[in-house]
Amino acid sequence: MPLSYFQCSECGQCFEPDQVTYNCLTCGGNLDAHFSFEENPDEINQSAILESGEASIWRYAPLLAAPDPGFNNTPLHQVGLTPVYQPESLRKSLGMQELWIKDESRNPSASFKDRASALVVARAIESDIQTIIAASTGNAGAALACMAASVGKQAVIIAPRSAPPAKVAQLLTFGARVVLVDGNYDQAFDLSIEASHEFGWYNRNTGYNPFTVEGKKTAGLEIWEQVLHKRGKSAQNLTIFIPVGDGNILSGVAKGFVDLLALGWIERLPRLVGVQAEGSAAIYNAFKAGVNEITPLRAKTVADSISVDLPRDGERALKRVNQSGGYYLTVSDQEILQAIPRLGKAGLFVEPAAAAAFAGLQAALRQGLHQSDEPALVLCTGSGLKDINAAMRAVEPAPIIEPTLKQLKEALHV
Amino acid sequence: MPLSYFQCSECGQCFEPDQVTYNCLTCGGNLDAHFSFEENPDEINQSAILESGEASIWRYAPLLAAPDPGFNNTPLHQVGLTPVYQPESLRKSLGMQELWIKDESRNPSASFKDRASALVVARAIESDIQTIIAASTGNAGAALACMAASVGKQAVIIAPRSAPPAKVAQLLTFGARVVLVDGNYDQAFDLSIEASHEFGWYNRNTGYNPFTVEGKKTAGLEIWEQVLHKRGKSAQNLTIFIPVGDGNILSGVAKGFVDLLALGWIERLPRLVGVQAEGSAAIYNAFKAGVNEITPLRAKTVADSISVDLPRDGERALKRVNQSGGYYLTVSDQEILQAIPRLGKAGLFVEPAAAAAFAGLQAALRQGLHQSDEPALVLCTGSGLKDINAAMRAVEPAPIIEPTLKQLKEALHV
Repeated sequence: MPLSYFQCSECGQCFEPDQVTYNCLTCGGNLDAHFSFEENPDEINQSAILESGEASIWRYAPLLAAPDPGFNNTPLHQVGLTPVYQPESLRKSLGMQELWIKDESRNPSASFKDRASALVVARAIESDIQTIIAASTGNAGAALACMAASVGKQAVIIAPRSAPPAKVAQLLTFGARVVLVDGNYDQAFDLSIEASHEFGWYNRNTGYNPFTVEGKKTAGLEIWEQVLHKRGKSAQNLTIFIPVGDGNILSGVAKGFVDLLALGWIERLPRLVGVQAEGSAAIYNAFKAGVNEITPLRAKTVADSISVDLPRDGERALKRVNQSGGYYLTVSDQEILQAIPRLGKAGLFVEPAAAAAFAGLQAALRQGLHQSDEPALVLCTGSGLKDINAAMRAVEPAPIIEPTLKQLKEALHV
Repeated sequence: MPLSYFQCSECGQCFEPDQVTYNCLTCGGNLDAHFSFEENPDEINQSAILESGEASIWRYAPLLAAPDPGFNNTPLHQVGLTPVYQPESLRKSLGMQELWIKDESRNPSASFKDRASALVVARAIESDIQTIIAASTGNAGAALACMAASVGKQAVIIAPRSAPPAKVAQLLTFGARVVLVDGNYDQAFDLSIEASHEFGWYNRNTGYNPFTVEGKKTAGLEIWEQVLHKRGKSAQNLTIFIPVGDGNILSGVAKGFVDLLALGWIERLPRLVGVQAEGSAAIYNAFKAGVNEITPLRAKTVADSISVDLPRDGERALKRVNQSGGYYLTVSDQEILQAIPRLGKAGLFVEPAAAAAFAGLQAALRQGLHQSDEPALVLCTGSGLKDINAAMRAVEPAPIIEPTLKQLKEALHV
């Protein structure tokens, strides 16, 4: 096991791995995992990773905070190594020289969140814990329910009753015990922590559980392997656009690069851009004001996955963006919806939060924050099948006709 | 190009590849593609295929009827090589010795149909055709729209207005021109053929276009590679459960094995079991009656993907099952719905048609048609996110509570 200690991302205090389960015992800040390979990079064999036949996050097992738990022929071993597309039509229409889109909808439960849930479940297996609880607006819960079902663990999910129906359908079908609260994500979050104390259930809550960011770092590792490593030093100026709600995905991707920096496999961090919805911009507000503290707000956006009143990993996500020389920006719901069919025409069907990242790239180009000759990667975090109502708002409805050639001609104007 | 000629699956007449585009010019039967490797198996290098780094259907390019069209960093190169799971919980609860589930929801548009659409699009690229039309109840159209968008082709989709909303949302988002007809699939089918004659558009209709079955055969090739080849001769008694509507998926999987038989890579066909919904059982009816002719009916089932009045590849799908020593059976809508959460508890979220295949295995075990010591593979053809209404009918709704520990305890009975 390469895990050597945890350090609080806020107060800097360090803890032995068996001393702490969730956040900092002193200040409540989220913890960063540290590894023996930071001191001894030679203990990691890069070629063995690159030549691994394992087409999932578990190819990076030597860099992860929990061991590969096996269950090879289950969805747990299908998480990650998602494709990076290079859609010519989008690249050209944006006038860009290099553009990658990483498609996280190809994960087993159709979102990025499988990465965190896979690592949390691996940790639960290692610790012989049977029940895992999480608060979730949808994707994280569906991911936990899917991963838990894969290995015979029980998931308990507390979601706000506003969670989109597709995500609730996933939760229930995967056999999770689901409770919808007449309240928001933050209330579900607090209740799930109460419940894990009361019943001894392992808590997966984003940020609060340090294994979530450790699972999400695999996306950073993959971007390194699929883009930076392939292209060599010329990729050092890559900018990555990431949708941001509670900030944990951004912190996770950043952590992957921080580990790679410690290994000496990259020379500096790629620039990270956090894209928030205008109606859920708590971290952006702090960035803009140049302060470290994040003020909660009343979030409202079409992008449910990044609709967050109180970001649970905001401080760290703010720090990581500054550390990378990046920035935060916001996009409107209209820009988010318009990005859905835009990505669709390249063969990608994404949910609003994922579309927000692409809308962020468009906004950055328009505002001169990003130059068209700078390479960019957009992290598309979830499938459009998760929220078809949003997609239907973004497109013109199909005409309904009698099945005749005459009516077809009229409908298609041909 | 290994394609050598087409032969009608009904009257047996042969055609040069450039002599025919769709079905038999004499009797209208669906065509089987034949290849030069049937005469000269040595022209195919098995090791080169097995050791190919290409993780998609294009690893089998030497066996396919259209060349790999490139577009490597697009969804077109993400079709196929879907995982086969071995869910321990399902295997044990069925009392089986060996069980595989092939998860086709992991294709780019979240269904099996990407396989056919990828090959049709490859054929359109080869022939320099810009517009491709299809009639579809949903998945085939979404797949065509996705593959066409990947490579900058225009898809036109004619669907019955009863197509599930998620599938229509996909079509529109992928930029297809969509028309919903106030009629059924069969009327959409006929209208699309009229339109392709009128406008010169390439027609992807299932069965009618011989490249659909050629695309679908890749699932058979993968089952060979992932199961039969890995296990050696002991797998020769594998039974494969396939959901059947128009019959083309079954014909396609069978065609893969027919080609492998010609190559001498297998000794006999695996047993193929066609599973139909009770309310859409035209092919089953013919099988049961021992006749070759299939009588249309008025289909009605919760499994929209296999709800078919007039099966467009029924005769061939009947022949292939008989050739393989297999059989047809039916399952009720209730059995289909019950199979959804059953698969969910193994981490798979499937649409009703896919659940039907698993319900078919359960029925076959119950009826003594399949023995628990015989290895079985279930082909799960599409994602549950395509039809969440069906999933919600299959599970108990989640309780809604105030966010307090007291109410949580009551709701979970803990």
